[in-house]
Amino acid sequence: MKNLWITEESKDFRYGYRVNKSLFSGQSDFQKVDVVETAGLGKMLFNDNLAMVSEKDEFVYHDMIAHVPLFTHPNPKKVLVIGGGDGGSLREVLRHKSVEKCVMVEIDKMVVDACREHIPQTAIALDDQRAELIIDDGIKYAKETSEKFDLILVDSTDPIGPATPLFNVDFYKDLHRILNDDGIVVSQCENPYFELEMQKKLLSIKNEVFPKVFIYNYANLTYPGGFWSFSMASKGPNPIEDFDAQRVLDSGLEFQYYNQHLHSAAFALPSFQRKSYENLVQNP
Amino acid sequence: MKNLWITEESKDFRYGYRVNKSLFSGQSDFQKVDVVETAGLGKMLFNDNLAMVSEKDEFVYHDMIAHVPLFTHPNPKKVLVIGGGDGGSLREVLRHKSVEKCVMVEIDKMVVDACREHIPQTAIALDDQRAELIIDDGIKYAKETSEKFDLILVDSTDPIGPATPLFNVDFYKDLHRILNDDGIVVSQCENPYFELEMQKKLLSIKNEVFPKVFIYNYANLTYPGGFWSFSMASKGPNPIEDFDAQRVLDSGLEFQYYNQHLHSAAFALPSFQRKSYENLVQNP
Repeated sequence: MKNLWITEESKDFRYGYRVNKSLFSGQSDFQKVDVVETAGLGKMLFNDNLAMVSEKDEFVYHDMIAHVPLFTHPNPKKVLVIGGGDGGSLREVLRHKSVEKCVMVEIDKMVVDACREHIPQTAIALDDQRAELIIDDGIKYAKETSEKFDLILVDSTDPIGPATPLFNVDFYKDLHRILNDDGIVVSQCENPYFELEMQKKLLSIKNEVFPKVFIYNYANLTYPGGFWSFSMASKGPNPIEDFDAQRVLDSGLEFQYYNQHLHSAAFALPSFQRKSYENLVQNP
Repeated sequence: MKNLWITEESKDFRYGYRVNKSLFSGQSDFQKVDVVETAGLGKMLFNDNLAMVSEKDEFVYHDMIAHVPLFTHPNPKKVLVIGGGDGGSLREVLRHKSVEKCVMVEIDKMVVDACREHIPQTAIALDDQRAELIIDDGIKYAKETSEKFDLILVDSTDPIGPATPLFNVDFYKDLHRILNDDGIVVSQCENPYFELEMQKKLLSIKNEVFPKVFIYNYANLTYPGGFWSFSMASKGPNPIEDFDAQRVLDSGLEFQYYNQHLHSAAFALPSFQRKSYENLVQNP
């Protein structure tokens, strides 16, 4: 067996994946982009050497960013994905029949092209008739567009690379403006064990702009620590009180991770999280 | 900064922790035992180079192995811990006032001694008056003892080292015999992403012996994949239907991970788990 590894390394931790072969490596205007075929998790996308997607567990992240708000909003027709260049979030959004249009605004064309060629598992829905792909800065798009949406998914990397401006109150004011009544925005919200302060900052920003803010958790294999969060800000619908489990069953959709039991359970936070977010979230 | 790392390595994955210094390294009759001080997670215990305990996240595992069954059983007085040499499970058990005695049977004295000296955070309750420490084989103890228990925690390592015989139907028949009516046994049950077949085997064994079997999940930092499971087998109490959230509040106990919301939420399984365990668990 060849002894090739790709390693995500931070100050105190290393996460290594055995590599069968490298499929793509490039440097865009925004970041380093790599696609490798690993022995344990199938093909993986790395941005700036941080694991973004693996074929084996991408269903977790994409189920949870998409279906939790889609089954919270009473009738989601127009959806905006900011970031999400691999296409997985768009793919899950378009499984919902109520969705008439999904706009995806990704800043880095190289990520989209690399995933189209090498990870069709996530990129498969990019050519759907209801999908509109815009290669542009999500901040600029949110500031300038005259379109309105029922749901916005901020499918971003960590606040250290090109995604840094997405963790900003002006951006969320723009999202509030382009959301219809009953609109919901869900954002990638880091790891509660390592990044509580970052989480609290994002929750504070959302509280400045939206009347209802929640956080919910999921567990996957490829993000350091395994246990990560999404934050949800809503103009109206409450993801726990207004959730109708029967709607999930009636949809006829089958998911690898999401289900009607897990929907509510994801909002039940470990005690250290509940304590840290006091007054910042409306979780039970 | 020194560049010392300790690395847990499997065929396809590596998990590395920056080390400040090594505190203990020994080879017992059963396994290699190491305690190191890491930069990111405080002191950590490794058995055969597998991470067992870190000071930063041990509360997750110990909360969930102990408090879920302790708040499921109507009146737990006598508890048996098999394995659990670091002492963390015993520590959590003894926080419950109803518990009159907790017997801990650990096969490897070196683990207990190393934790007593270097990780008092977990070993602190080993000298409690209600604690009885027995250095012996848990299989042999379960076969021979005439004592009876309300609750048994199988706080074991993976089924590849000294814990292998704990994944066996004869062992669970003995546990059934030494459990009182209403008795419950909870066992460390591996990672659902990587070890579904192992989980199903353990659930099948429990179904041969007990009328009610459940699985529940938790998320920590130091076990590969982050997302792990406990299995529960019960002679009577149902951890969901018979759970009284008010009892948790009335206990006056505060936990870093466990709470009344998380109790039930932990039994809400991702869809791929629900499908895999069909007919093996009574989860919702």
